[in-house]
Amino acid sequence: MPHLTGILETSLYVEDLDRSVRFYQNVFTFERLVGDERFCALRTTDQRVLLLFKHGSSTKPMVSSGGTIPPHDGGGQLHLAFAIPAGELETWERWLERHQLAIESRVRWERGGESIYFRDPDGHLLELVTPGCWAIY
Amino acid sequence: MPHLTGILETSLYVEDLDRSVRFYQNVFTFERLVGDERFCALRTTDQRVLLLFKHGSSTKPMVSSGGTIPPHDGGGQLHLAFAIPAGELETWERWLERHQLAIESRVRWERGGESIYFRDPDGHLLELVTPGCWAIY
Repeated sequence: MPHLTGILETSLYVEDLDRSVRFYQNVFTFERLVGDERFCALRTTDQRVLLLFKHGSSTKPMVSSGGTIPPHDGGGQLHLAFAIPAGELETWERWLERHQLAIESRVRWERGGESIYFRDPDGHLLELVTPGCWAIY
Repeated sequence: MPHLTGILETSLYVEDLDRSVRFYQNVFTFERLVGDERFCALRTTDQRVLLLFKHGSSTKPMVSSGGTIPPHDGGGQLHLAFAIPAGELETWERWLERHQLAIESRVRWERGGESIYFRDPDGHLLELVTPGCWAIY
């Protein structure tokens, strides 16, 4: 079994790229790494990469001098969860209110963790969750 | 700005849940955390959670004693990248061949990293990438 470090890039597909970049920069303060009219790569706080692709803009192979990135695309309202430290939930609630983001739902997990759910501009389902959700978190 | 630990859960939406669970268990040896006929949660090697949802099975709110998980769903062939250590690329190539998975494309990045691309059973675009791709990796 070859070694795998972990998930490096997670993708969301969005209608208005500028709007989504602003959203993830403003709400999560993710830093813009690189981007163009087709996509934007944002650095998350755990040194991973959140990729935002404009709907329908990656359905053809992307040819470059280094090789070809095969086509991909996505629709719907995907789900993505972010881990937050225990005790940060109230701070996040105030932060979301400040950004006029409505909390759509809350869940208290059997292991003691808590989640709040809200939407990004495309309706992707975002979750903030404190430790005590999974056996590993 | 409230603190955020990082991305905890990444989701893929699949046609045949059993088939996809087997794929991610066999190819990546991700451990099954929990699941049912609707979804499966797998532990990745970096202690994150890869969520596999059966297409169309999460379009209604999921009510439980702890609260309600709002609806979400996705279509298309999403992109997901996994980090692998430098020097592990050949081992991965042999591993993929052993699992009869065709490498669809290769890219050499300006920073020296290399990627190989292949597909999961739903055609989601998976990438294995060595360090030297992003400014942060």
